[in-house]
Amino acid sequence: MRTAIVLFDRFTALDAVGPYETMSRIPGAETVFVAERTGPVRNDTGSLALTADRTLADVPDPDVVVVPGGPGQDAQMGNETLLDWLRAADAASTWTTSVCSGSLLLAAAGLLSGRRATSHWLALDLLKQYGAEPTGERVVTDGKYVTAAGVSSGIDMGLTLVGRIAGDEHAQAVQLLTEYDPQPPYDAGSPDKAPAYLVEEFRTRNRFILN
Amino acid sequence: MRTAIVLFDRFTALDAVGPYETMSRIPGAETVFVAERTGPVRNDTGSLALTADRTLADVPDPDVVVVPGGPGQDAQMGNETLLDWLRAADAASTWTTSVCSGSLLLAAAGLLSGRRATSHWLALDLLKQYGAEPTGERVVTDGKYVTAAGVSSGIDMGLTLVGRIAGDEHAQAVQLLTEYDPQPPYDAGSPDKAPAYLVEEFRTRNRFILN
Repeated sequence: MRTAIVLFDRFTALDAVGPYETMSRIPGAETVFVAERTGPVRNDTGSLALTADRTLADVPDPDVVVVPGGPGQDAQMGNETLLDWLRAADAASTWTTSVCSGSLLLAAAGLLSGRRATSHWLALDLLKQYGAEPTGERVVTDGKYVTAAGVSSGIDMGLTLVGRIAGDEHAQAVQLLTEYDPQPPYDAGSPDKAPAYLVEEFRTRNRFILN
Repeated sequence: MRTAIVLFDRFTALDAVGPYETMSRIPGAETVFVAERTGPVRNDTGSLALTADRTLADVPDPDVVVVPGGPGQDAQMGNETLLDWLRAADAASTWTTSVCSGSLLLAAAGLLSGRRATSHWLALDLLKQYGAEPTGERVVTDGKYVTAAGVSSGIDMGLTLVGRIAGDEHAQAVQLLTEYDPQPPYDAGSPDKAPAYLVEEFRTRNRFILN
């Protein structure tokens, strides 16, 4: 089973590494980071670079596609090389997935039309513009399309997919070994829970991804 | 404020990227990945490489030190270049921190003697051998030393430190923007919660980090 995780300039690191850390531990999994060009790809703050080991063209038909988000997603919405690759990869994939604003790229490729999907809480309305049916859920499965909400939600998505692909027991083993027993020191992880003025402030700023 | 995140061959990616994603968003933060040599550093599965932009020698006195773990930690326990750097960096740091078996490296450098600390649940006994006082807690603060349990716990540690350094409001903003409202699809993230036979199986295998 081959999983391709797509990188692009100014992606958000945890969007990619959250699902990576769990899904790369599926028995028999081969995981490859892909981008238009091989080499280091810088994240949204510029202080982190993940290596793309293969080009998109090198990996035309992965079994699982993972598309992270981040502020760089915006510049990719009209990138036909990437969108064409997404459409072709999706035609052969078993699972097509995204984290955060990565779902907007799936949507721009025409893959989420009429489907239930999610994204970063500030991007849900935009998802609707592409004909998807956004939900406020953290992980949404619609057929073979699995989308996750903002940044850290990719960990939950990854574990969900480990369970679907390798079984509940293996997913529990991965959870135990990654010690995923979250205990956030605050309870502000969603717009329902965070202080209202913070939610309002970010809605007003109108750009939904971390800068 | 300069944060140095230490990389070494066969580190575990989420150990480094969990705290990175939150702590790099502290106002005025400069975050740099450091290793003995600059360039790509491969993780435990070999399919991910993060770039070290600076050598250890380039960054002798960061304000915050973050040491991830992973199976590669074992080979670093006698690496005097790294251990000397940790001791020197610690002498000037405001916070010295670790995730997973990274605390064993802090311990091997002599920095956790007599201190309360944590590590991956399978590494707690080993921590004791270095004179630390291991606890089963997910994030342990003892003075300026902050250690986190296995892999994913670095996210909780990162948010804790954002709160200490930049204030509760900023930490809540980071939590909201990273949508850290965890909803694991299983409840097997600690030895107390996972099926007993899985815990037993991993204890028997005797190598505590993900392979």
